[in-house]
Amino acid sequence: MLSDMMKNVREKTPLIHNITNYVTVNDCANILLACGGSPIMSDDADEVEQITTVCGGLNINIGTLNRLTIPAMHLAGKKANALGHPVVLDPVGAGASDLRTQTALSLLRDINFAVIRGNISEIKTLALGSGTTKGVDADVADTVTEDNLDEAVAFAKTFAKKTGSVIAVTGAIDIVADGEKAYCIFNGHPAMSQITGTGCQLSAMTAAYVTANPDHPLEAAAAAVCVMGLCGERARERMCEKDGNLSYRGYIIDAVCTLTGEELDKGAKYDMR
Amino acid sequence: MLSDMMKNVREKTPLIHNITNYVTVNDCANILLACGGSPIMSDDADEVEQITTVCGGLNINIGTLNRLTIPAMHLAGKKANALGHPVVLDPVGAGASDLRTQTALSLLRDINFAVIRGNISEIKTLALGSGTTKGVDADVADTVTEDNLDEAVAFAKTFAKKTGSVIAVTGAIDIVADGEKAYCIFNGHPAMSQITGTGCQLSAMTAAYVTANPDHPLEAAAAAVCVMGLCGERARERMCEKDGNLSYRGYIIDAVCTLTGEELDKGAKYDMR
Amino acid sequence: MLSDMMKNVREKTPLIHNITNYVTVNDCANILLACGGSPIMSDDADEVEQITTVCGGLNINIGTLNRLTIPAMHLAGKKANALGHPVVLDPVGAGASDLRTQTALSLLRDINFAVIRGNISEIKTLALGSGTTKGVDADVADTVTEDNLDEAVAFAKTFAKKTGSVIAVTGAIDIVADGEKAYCIFNGHPAMSQITGTGCQLSAMTAAYVTANPDHPLEAAAAAVCVMGLCGERARERMCEKDGNLSYRGYIIDAVCTLTGEELDKGAKYDMR
Repeated sequence: MLSDMMKNVREKTPLIHNITNYVTVNDCANILLACGGSPIMSDDADEVEQITTVCGGLNINIGTLNRLTIPAMHLAGKKANALGHPVVLDPVGAGASDLRTQTALSLLRDINFAVIRGNISEIKTLALGSGTTKGVDADVADTVTEDNLDEAVAFAKTFAKKTGSVIAVTGAIDIVADGEKAYCIFNGHPAMSQITGTGCQLSAMTAAYVTANPDHPLEAAAAAVCVMGLCGERARERMCEKDGNLSYRGYIIDAVCTLTGEELDKGAKYDMR
Repeated sequence: MLSDMMKNVREKTPLIHNITNYVTVNDCANILLACGGSPIMSDDADEVEQITTVCGGLNINIGTLNRLTIPAMHLAGKKANALGHPVVLDPVGAGASDLRTQTALSLLRDINFAVIRGNISEIKTLALGSGTTKGVDADVADTVTEDNLDEAVAFAKTFAKKTGSVIAVTGAIDIVADGEKAYCIFNGHPAMSQITGTGCQLSAMTAAYVTANPDHPLEAAAAAVCVMGLCGERARERMCEKDGNLSYRGYIIDAVCTLTGEELDKGAKYDMR
Repeated sequence: MLSDMMKNVREKTPLIHNITNYVTVNDCANILLACGGSPIMSDDADEVEQITTVCGGLNINIGTLNRLTIPAMHLAGKKANALGHPVVLDPVGAGASDLRTQTALSLLRDINFAVIRGNISEIKTLALGSGTTKGVDADVADTVTEDNLDEAVAFAKTFAKKTGSVIAVTGAIDIVADGEKAYCIFNGHPAMSQITGTGCQLSAMTAAYVTANPDHPLEAAAAAVCVMGLCGERARERMCEKDGNLSYRGYIIDAVCTLTGEELDKGAKYDMR
């Protein structure tokens, strides 16, 4: 049950080390608190190994990466691996610049990731070794729809098998796959793309979920994706006429904070392929 | 019509590269989404040229500038110029330190800006080559009022002629001028100064407006300034007794998100001089 | 009267230089505006001395410290000392890594702080020269309760005497002490720990309070702590069923913005020991 995954986060309060971009970092911290985890942000190479040691899991997000933070990502990731802590990769904008693509590929070579979460263009870039992401959003040509869903699921499973990671491809339809099984998740609302950072927030929350559920990375990641999508729906229902994207952003985090396990199990819309 | 400028932003969804401060970056991203644009933030010298290449316009904001980001501003600006992408400069705090003043002046020498937007003290610092800005707010002595408006308009036009940029001086009364014409804009609310980053947000939004309206930089910048001021008014009307500056901040971005073209044309208060 | 402290902030609008983390920086800027102060953020060694010179006070917060910002903290702090500006230290996560512990201790050696504000684990780390902070939250073993309050007060007074600083230890019960007297403050709400950055915000606001009340650092810091706690209570009362931690965050800053002096004097819950 997805709600068991949620319950474990709330009971264990996993402390998550985040090396993440400065655009959405406050939202990442607040959604970690909202879901029942606890955040710490730290990105200097001189301390990241110690910081990750006192944490339970690590979230690496390459948005606004720079020459100081890239080495810190490698150090923290390798240390987390050595300690058996789950590590999540969010390859923001992979494909949009060589620096992002190469950094993501290099992290993939150095570090074992429990989960890799991105949009379809970013994940394709990692799988193919190059790409043409349009900024930080997915290319329209890549969009996962009902028509190409089976193909996308097969792609995600193959990449999961190759990397040993759970692959979470999020978009209008989300796919969360390991080498054998895939959750196809139909929660969410198109307006979520009008807010900066719902992807970053989901990656941070996913780190809390897989940290609190170490034996169930696939289910844990799927639960986090369902929580985010379902909260996007619930937040949307709460909106009044004058509310725009900034209120929507707040309502989603609020919804993560107030969602019950029963509501999650009832509201989650997915099938397995 | 100002609403034509808005319509073009919403139809073209211009992707804007932002090299901006970490204080208000999230608000800049969300207001870009609210107005119909799309944001990407990137400030490492190793990738800014590629990032700006996939974008339509560039917004350079020198708040929290540092030795890593200053060279990136030059690289990105020159690349954007070479590609014919419009570039906006927000000289946050120019006059408050030599580093800010010299960086702003150096950017002015290196890069052709479509629009330069700042408060009167910052713009005077650029025009005179030195200044005494009090932090990031305008000096009281510099304030544009009905009494000195014609003088301020003449100053803005002269600086516009000299730089070849549209000059947007924002404050209680806003002036948006090229070498020939100036919009004097009377929208806005004094409480906007109680929120951090309304200026930064406006610069980001202005980049989207001039990118989506490449043949009308003056009108596009004026439209962005009117949208911001009008949304400051509308957000103010929405406030209840318990709301303070943080709710106000959110309501302004919400208002940018929900404003219609008809409301803009009806609500914009300006004259031409 | 605590409300006199507040009145001075609102009348003098102290400009506060912040060298602070990128996680909560926007909230720090907005709470400074909410309380009646004015923020500027700047962390490059090439400008911090000039920036702090045009300000009235300085707030140093070591969350997300790095090799570029640490030297800037020393330069700015020494300059502020030379100018007689009050300086506040927020030793975020001291004890969680050697870098944080050593940076905080080194700043303590170099700079005279008007106020040091942290949770009990962080303050103990500074007093003992080493520590075991769990991330950025206090260790449960360290928690200040009614039972060990007198002991904690004695500890705070001793550390205040040693450093010459007002010591603000915040948690379920807050202690604000100089070498002779201590305020024990009982305002606040447990849910405040579900928001990122209430501590950072309080440190920023404390800088405004001690800057506007240079002859009363103890009373000024106590007033800031009472304002924060009381606003945490008032914001809590405002919450509706669907509100979570993100709305709560906004309501607290709103409450700081709208709180009156009368409400502060009436709502402050403290005793002197």
